[in-house]
Amino acid sequence: MQIDFEPLGIRSQGNSSTSLQESARQAGIVINALCGGLGKCGSCKIQVLDGPASAHTEAEQTLLTPDELSNGYRLACQVYPLGDIKIHIPVESLTATQRIQLESQESVVTIDPIVRNYDAFLPMPTLHDTRSDVTRLTDYLEERYGLENLSIDFELLKSVPTCLRELDWATTIGIREGEIVSLKPLGKPSLGLAVDLGTTKIAAYLVDLREGRTLASSGITNPQIAYGEDVISRIAYAMKGAKEATILSEVVITSLNELAHRLCSQSDCNVHQIEEVVIAGNTVMRHLILMLPVAQLGLAPYISADNNPLDVKAKALNLDFSPGCYIHFPPNIGGFIGSDCVAMILATSINQAKNVVLGMDIGTNTEITLKTPQQIYACSTASGPAFEGAHIRNGMRAADGAIEKVRIVGSVVEYQTIGGVAPIGLCGSGILDVVAQLFRLGIINEAGTMKDNPLVRRGKDGPEFVLVGKSAGNNKEIVITRRDIGEIQLAKGAIQAGINILLAEAGLKETDIDQVIIAGAFGSYINVDSAIAIGILPRLPPQCFNQVGNAAGMGAKIILVSNEKREQAKKIPNQVHYVDLITNSNFFQEFSKAMFLPKDITVSPNQR
Amino acid sequence: MQIDFEPLGIRSQGNSSTSLQESARQAGIVINALCGGLGKCGSCKIQVLDGPASAHTEAEQTLLTPDELSNGYRLACQVYPLGDIKIHIPVESLTATQRIQLESQESVVTIDPIVRNYDAFLPMPTLHDTRSDVTRLTDYLEERYGLENLSIDFELLKSVPTCLRELDWATTIGIREGEIVSLKPLGKPSLGLAVDLGTTKIAAYLVDLREGRTLASSGITNPQIAYGEDVISRIAYAMKGAKEATILSEVVITSLNELAHRLCSQSDCNVHQIEEVVIAGNTVMRHLILMLPVAQLGLAPYISADNNPLDVKAKALNLDFSPGCYIHFPPNIGGFIGSDCVAMILATSINQAKNVVLGMDIGTNTEITLKTPQQIYACSTASGPAFEGAHIRNGMRAADGAIEKVRIVGSVVEYQTIGGVAPIGLCGSGILDVVAQLFRLGIINEAGTMKDNPLVRRGKDGPEFVLVGKSAGNNKEIVITRRDIGEIQLAKGAIQAGINILLAEAGLKETDIDQVIIAGAFGSYINVDSAIAIGILPRLPPQCFNQVGNAAGMGAKIILVSNEKREQAKKIPNQVHYVDLITNSNFFQEFSKAMFLPKDITVSPNQR
Repeated sequence: MQIDFEPLGIRSQGNSSTSLQESARQAGIVINALCGGLGKCGSCKIQVLDGPASAHTEAEQTLLTPDELSNGYRLACQVYPLGDIKIHIPVESLTATQRIQLESQESVVTIDPIVRNYDAFLPMPTLHDTRSDVTRLTDYLEERYGLENLSIDFELLKSVPTCLRELDWATTIGIREGEIVSLKPLGKPSLGLAVDLGTTKIAAYLVDLREGRTLASSGITNPQIAYGEDVISRIAYAMKGAKEATILSEVVITSLNELAHRLCSQSDCNVHQIEEVVIAGNTVMRHLILMLPVAQLGLAPYISADNNPLDVKAKALNLDFSPGCYIHFPPNIGGFIGSDCVAMILATSINQAKNVVLGMDIGTNTEITLKTPQQIYACSTASGPAFEGAHIRNGMRAADGAIEKVRIVGSVVEYQTIGGVAPIGLCGSGILDVVAQLFRLGIINEAGTMKDNPLVRRGKDGPEFVLVGKSAGNNKEIVITRRDIGEIQLAKGAIQAGINILLAEAGLKETDIDQVIIAGAFGSYINVDSAIAIGILPRLPPQCFNQVGNAAGMGAKIILVSNEKREQAKKIPNQVHYVDLITNSNFFQEFSKAMFLPKDITVSPNQR
Repeated sequence: MQIDFEPLGIRSQGNSSTSLQESARQAGIVINALCGGLGKCGSCKIQVLDGPASAHTEAEQTLLTPDELSNGYRLACQVYPLGDIKIHIPVESLTATQRIQLESQESVVTIDPIVRNYDAFLPMPTLHDTRSDVTRLTDYLEERYGLENLSIDFELLKSVPTCLRELDWATTIGIREGEIVSLKPLGKPSLGLAVDLGTTKIAAYLVDLREGRTLASSGITNPQIAYGEDVISRIAYAMKGAKEATILSEVVITSLNELAHRLCSQSDCNVHQIEEVVIAGNTVMRHLILMLPVAQLGLAPYISADNNPLDVKAKALNLDFSPGCYIHFPPNIGGFIGSDCVAMILATSINQAKNVVLGMDIGTNTEITLKTPQQIYACSTASGPAFEGAHIRNGMRAADGAIEKVRIVGSVVEYQTIGGVAPIGLCGSGILDVVAQLFRLGIINEAGTMKDNPLVRRGKDGPEFVLVGKSAGNNKEIVITRRDIGEIQLAKGAIQAGINILLAEAGLKETDIDQVIIAGAFGSYINVDSAIAIGILPRLPPQCFNQVGNAAGMGAKIILVSNEKREQAKKIPNQVHYVDLITNSNFFQEFSKAMFLPKDITVSPNQR
């Protein structure tokens, strides 16, 4: 019998004696299994969309709500197919590694890149036709395609005579807003690169510009991290002098070149085929890569050199792409809300929403947008690197061996690691789970203070909770310290204060929010219930939340392939009312209140 | 009493016992004096425009024509003022060094440079006005001057935040076609640089863009000469490889930087104040400085990469000017007629002439244009470096000690050197005089063969004529060899063939020409009679000739200061019918005929 796994679009064979969880694993899809498939944890929740399946087990009746049961929700470890079946796997039931696959889903936009390609078959020069190479080209393009007043990129011009003769006068020409920017063998792909330049991570997508298809994607750590973890410390480093500012730009440029080379070699093509690049990032990242002065950005009133959309030649930035390639920087919204937020708004269509939508891109800086029927409000808050695993004793980034999910039952700690290997640390979503569970069990109180418990001991930094002891196969102890919890409180406080200030600006309260869009890699991995439990997310019904992955990257890709969307993006800053938290008189009061964990938590079924 | 010297505009004091030649010398004006002021050579011809003077001497009656006498022409060494007097010194009566002064005369154009300057007094940013620096600027420019949709140069952007704060928000802004290209202290001059990039020489003019005034000018030898004397040998060198092509570009760039630095320090300003540059030059020079491939330009059908007007950022060429500075290259006409010819046509207004005008820019390549009431015909001919003093045994460039004028009377050789110092060689105009005189005296025949004569001896290269023997004070002999004469025959043949082919294309003959404009440094120094005598110039009455100096440089200056003229220049190539000599079936026949010196020479009075 046949099993269709949505939204992955994977089809495989199954049978009535193999659980859907096992069938999924055989098809290469890893569904959560905190309890090891014993029907105890509820982390493998799926939805049967169509087709016959075995009856509900006792475990399912305990762990699923009546609402869920009536809507076809099941636990993958408990259900066996009885015929062809179609199931939907919610994002939160997939392991982190699996979720990345989801990001590669293309959003639906009309493909209309700024660089358009035209085939040309030119007459050869003769003694009686001595037009220059460029005039020969532009005459043809005018005659054949009605294109007038074309100019040509200067770097490209240097290769035109040689190229045309090597290609025997038959070529495909890339034109961008009246400028000839590329010249290649007939029909060769036109490539683009979309980049989400984050403070901590850089994600890049190699795209076929004519088809809008993503050929390869990859992420790396932003190498500027060696010179400062957050934007403020990088501003301080750049202000030391021209040499330091140059270093911060050069390390990113080098990384982008390497990343592009890697993506291209994976896709059997060459970086010189890249004809257009879009880089979205926060305002500081844009200043640093472009070597714009940052002194005025780091001090009140925090003034940006330029927030307009900017087109810079790749050559001017020492990027290795096609000679005529432009780097497009979408507009910034303000000193601390950059084009990554514009890209996120574009990708999630928040700006076109009719109801009240809260958008959050959780990272080292968290950008928060609040769309009301009248206005978009936006702010940026320094949530710090704790969610990336930094500043946490046993923290680590989301990689093999990172604990990504945790459930504490009495004195038993159940956990799941990325890649299913022995645990070596905690990534952001795991840390969030631990704090939520400790709070639920009363092991920490609202102030984050750790109470006595068999698993709590005194370590060098004060009290710490032992998650993984030194047992067989685990050479490494994994603990969470009081100080770690403090880091999460700071991050949570910053985010919650931001949300509250935007709500106050709009004259709304938490319950007025209809939908919450959670963007960013970290936001996609977190357990929404845990995040609500400790107060990072507003207390709203589960169906209000939508975890959309790297929306900034997705937006950059959309701006890359659609000129119409690029024009829309240019207008977004004018639609946004920027709320500066640092100069907001209520911020510090809100922040210090929000550092406390919430008093009356509603525990969701699978955490009971 | 008062003496006015035109067209130099110099006024000085004189008296009735001092000749006008001597008064001129006291005023710093050096008039020719081949015979030493004895009234024998006729080289000091001047015209009295107004005021009383001594009576005609016998010498004047012998050396001047009745026509000249009735028009107020005199010999400066023979005439004494009898009251306030105003005289005109024809270009040909000035020594070479003096003539350079003439070039600095500004031509009359409306000053309207492409970079326009606007003063701005910006409001300072506050916590309630956090617009970016660029938006603050563009908002002001829109509000105050109605300028919309401005963009900003990327290199300039890098300095904007620092600049605005250092200038305390009061600044003068340069805008070029909607792009902000400079930002400077209020009211600081806006500078431009006009360059005539010749195969042999580079001339540069530093200009105040707002006033159109030339602040300083200078010329240097094109350093590419070390890699090939003519365009063909430089193409060959550039084709050796990327390294060689880079060298040819870099040496010129380095020279231009040095030249600009020198001109600026003479004018008490800085190269970073240069906001716009115009470089006119032949097609090969433009390809080489821009590092455009030249292989296709060196072989039939001789195709240029691009002939359109081109704007390239100074930064892209490693030129040291203001960060936003553009280098404008006016259009080329064809593979071998460059923007220097366009500049020359613009400066001399040949394109607007109503009658038949022949324009010539004599140099290593000589560009020839023929304006008829219907059309402009143009060609370029390889006249070689003989006129620059190269390939001539005792040739030298026009510098102190170069013989610039020669007269042979019997067995006496009279000569005049630049700077009046002991002779060390012959420059172009001197060589031309010698050949004309030897031909007139029958010492050489039409084929250039040297006959027996007391001053002719046999040297290592065959017969040679001794101009300057080893006498007291002259350690160096100066001779002209049969081979030297051959070089002049080749140059003359190339030029004359070019003229004849253009005349044939236009269906005209030599006598149809109404006016001859002779441009180029060399062309300004030559004795027109000598040039007619050996057939370089058509045999027309003296008043038909107009020696205009470096018209290409003048044209570059006009394009620099007048946007209207720049637009006119862009249209000139379309008005010109380019005649390619190399592919013209009649060229080699015309050329071999034209190598002979003319049969029936008409000797002008002062050569009799």
